[in-house]
Amino acid sequence: MSKALPKRSENYSEWYNEIVKRADLAENSAVRGCMVIKPYGFAIWEKMQRALDDMFKATGHQNAYFPLFVPKSFLEKEEEHAEGFAKECAVVTHYRLKNNPDGKGLIVDPNAKLEEELIIRPTSEAVIWNAYKGWIQSWRDLPILVNQWANVVRWEMRTRIFLRTAEFLWQEGHTAHATEEEAISETHQMLGVYAEFAEGWMALPVIQGVKSPSERFAGAVDTFCIEAIMQDGKALQAGTSHFLGQNFARSFDVQFVNKENQLEYPWATSWGVSTRLMGALIMAHSDDNGLVLPPKLAPIQVVIVPIYRSPEDLAAISEKIAPLLGELRAAGISIKYDDSDNQRSGWKFAEYELRGVPVRLGIGMRDIENGTVEVARRDTLTKEPRNANFSSPAEFVHEIKLLLDEIQENIYQRALKFREENTFLVDTWDEFKKQIEKGGFIMAHWDGTAETEAAIKDETKATIRCIPLLSAEQAGKCVYSGKESAKRVLFARAY
Amino acid sequence: MSKALPKRSENYSEWYNEIVKRADLAENSAVRGCMVIKPYGFAIWEKMQRALDDMFKATGHQNAYFPLFVPKSFLEKEEEHAEGFAKECAVVTHYRLKNNPDGKGLIVDPNAKLEEELIIRPTSEAVIWNAYKGWIQSWRDLPILVNQWANVVRWEMRTRIFLRTAEFLWQEGHTAHATEEEAISETHQMLGVYAEFAEGWMALPVIQGVKSPSERFAGAVDTFCIEAIMQDGKALQAGTSHFLGQNFARSFDVQFVNKENQLEYPWATSWGVSTRLMGALIMAHSDDNGLVLPPKLAPIQVVIVPIYRSPEDLAAISEKIAPLLGELRAAGISIKYDDSDNQRSGWKFAEYELRGVPVRLGIGMRDIENGTVEVARRDTLTKEPRNANFSSPAEFVHEIKLLLDEIQENIYQRALKFREENTFLVDTWDEFKKQIEKGGFIMAHWDGTAETEAAIKDETKATIRCIPLLSAEQAGKCVYSGKESAKRVLFARAY
Repeated sequence: MSKALPKRSENYSEWYNEIVKRADLAENSAVRGCMVIKPYGFAIWEKMQRALDDMFKATGHQNAYFPLFVPKSFLEKEEEHAEGFAKECAVVTHYRLKNNPDGKGLIVDPNAKLEEELIIRPTSEAVIWNAYKGWIQSWRDLPILVNQWANVVRWEMRTRIFLRTAEFLWQEGHTAHATEEEAISETHQMLGVYAEFAEGWMALPVIQGVKSPSERFAGAVDTFCIEAIMQDGKALQAGTSHFLGQNFARSFDVQFVNKENQLEYPWATSWGVSTRLMGALIMAHSDDNGLVLPPKLAPIQVVIVPIYRSPEDLAAISEKIAPLLGELRAAGISIKYDDSDNQRSGWKFAEYELRGVPVRLGIGMRDIENGTVEVARRDTLTKEPRNANFSSPAEFVHEIKLLLDEIQENIYQRALKFREENTFLVDTWDEFKKQIEKGGFIMAHWDGTAETEAAIKDETKATIRCIPLLSAEQAGKCVYSGKESAKRVLFARAY
Repeated sequence: MSKALPKRSENYSEWYNEIVKRADLAENSAVRGCMVIKPYGFAIWEKMQRALDDMFKATGHQNAYFPLFVPKSFLEKEEEHAEGFAKECAVVTHYRLKNNPDGKGLIVDPNAKLEEELIIRPTSEAVIWNAYKGWIQSWRDLPILVNQWANVVRWEMRTRIFLRTAEFLWQEGHTAHATEEEAISETHQMLGVYAEFAEGWMALPVIQGVKSPSERFAGAVDTFCIEAIMQDGKALQAGTSHFLGQNFARSFDVQFVNKENQLEYPWATSWGVSTRLMGALIMAHSDDNGLVLPPKLAPIQVVIVPIYRSPEDLAAISEKIAPLLGELRAAGISIKYDDSDNQRSGWKFAEYELRGVPVRLGIGMRDIENGTVEVARRDTLTKEPRNANFSSPAEFVHEIKLLLDEIQENIYQRALKFREENTFLVDTWDEFKKQIEKGGFIMAHWDGTAETEAAIKDETKATIRCIPLLSAEQAGKCVYSGKESAKRVLFARAY
């Protein structure tokens, strides 16, 4: 048996790293800050992709693909955008290597210098708006509702698997509209899609809100986000949806003839979620035994472990439960029957617990005789025998389906309860400083100035995660400056 | 009405470019050699991806993701591999831009030079085998059956949309095995998967074969490929599967303890297909009216165009055919009902012809009265009225399903017939030189030497596409040197 995981309460950060490693989700690569997403981790990401992609298409979007490279001059065009991304980008300067004339190996060929440097996309507004210039002439060409699944690179100095990596995978939607209202409505719609995905699939309750100006995406008029709480009380931004106004249209000189036959700049949005969601999924639900996966995103929803002493026992079990396996598969449940003979069943139990498989069915010789199965739930770590009726298991399979739904809901409710218990209304600066050390979401009044926001961040490392869309207008005094405030905003330390 | 397409017989190359453009598949980007894949083109690629991915998974493979960057020192490790890719790669040398102190805009920050240059992956053997070093210790860790969907960059000097671009999308399988036999068998299996996909989905008949040593993948022991013929008589390599022996295991020092408790190098394969397949799909089937898509890969399989004069007519048609639309969708047929009112039906007919929609249903007021539909086939450009029975259209929908199957098969048979008519057994050098000017596949004897192969290429631009797996051993004389030959090989000019 391998060493136990570090406990969340003792070393949250190590606990996270160890789960990522032992559940075989991902690892650091030899390239600084870049990760390798291993098959089990990637299978979870694929489930996320499929669900999100279906939701994008259901809301009228189509996928496309734009180049990896952003010419330097494109990045320069939108000033704030350039400011935001220039300092952490991978720059391609040459297009050839050659044999080292002075020795072994390869060197960059100095004769193969690019006339203009190419940036590996940190995001694709610049490249995409340059293409949209050719796509948009008339109001008939609008709206453009396009998404791409891609890799992007931001040369972060401090990296952490899934949460902050130099290269990561994401999707980025980029839309163009004839009117401001339509673009704003798209921004909200996609924020809603992200919230629905986070809550319905990831079982992750989120706060929808708008960023303060200092936390806006570089080049956006408004940035909306969904914010979730992790088990250490820190916040994690799980998705953003930006209203870009006409900024990129102007920078890239994209205009269209409107219905009144006049030239106008189209209105833009962009929105994205990334492999960062993997980090959120792990940190929100998992426990000291390992990963806990919501059934809707689990690559294996049900694992079946035969408990046997002899090959004859195994054969008897395998034969008896064949109809059950068939019926589970036919019900669309993704199952694994682990009849491998190089590990004991106890080892297997621990392994699937570590990997977060929502339901485990243990079946021994006595179960075969009695027509029973031991059903273990990953979320509650409880187990109980159930009648399976191996020769006609439809009723049992139906129960398992319901159980998976119940687990999905339970994981969500547990996370919601955790957030409620860790959200605090704070009205004094002393209380604020005390609470932020203990962690959690702090709802406090803010005077709306960047100076106060910066001072609070300096003193406590807490940032305004968002101004929640749903919180009520309620006058009060800024927790830091004592000045007037119309509404509480959400503060937290964040990933 | 826009200008007619160039004819294949007059300017094949322009015909291809215009189809790519007018069917809205892709376009050149502002970045040299990189393409933008537009939504309609990407929807076809997504269908290809889904079908291939299902086949990979059905053969036991899992997806994963490895870094975009290959450190220069990794590329150097396998000598032939380095030789093959160093001359056309994008090199990242810096990780930051800064404001130009002498003027406007951004410049590369000279203080942000990387200690070691990073190459944008041209293929991922090096990065992946470096990771496998940590994954493989014992025979129990094998086989590793991993695939990734990714973008890669090869700095080609002459580019052509889909066929040869600096950045392209592909999948690359990378497997590791305990025995040579198993790795060879995997190489063949994946070649078979590619052939099945090309023929069954793309309706593209292919010749399976092995490359001559000079055409091998850099670092491979053997390269297998599928080769298809295009309508201009040129060959297109549509997929490759490499047996890599122990080359990469040795270069990256990956060893495992075998069942006899001895250290051994694992055996490797890699295999890939790319967005190049889009080029093959276009060039193999399309005609002077535009794209022709096999139904299995068509984003829209059936388009329904109402033919009307007044809004009342349109409303009557729409109401009458609602059950038909529902039934077509329920049958899993992807349909589009184009009731847009800004274009005439004649324009729409031409547009969907251009876009290669396999079946078009035209429905006018008289059809509504008679319960008929005009069914037009894209592959044969024929049309005929059929009874639709709008109130109970199940039988008609069944007919449409069969028609789609028939079109899929017809496109394949037509391409197969074309290949047969354009494959020539050639036995003399004069005949060879004459035939190669006319195009087509030439089956000829070759003495097996690189010198003869090079001489033939020099004189005729024809290359050995492959040594077909299925061609019979049959002794003869080399078409060029007159020396002994055991078997005919496939020559052609190629994309």
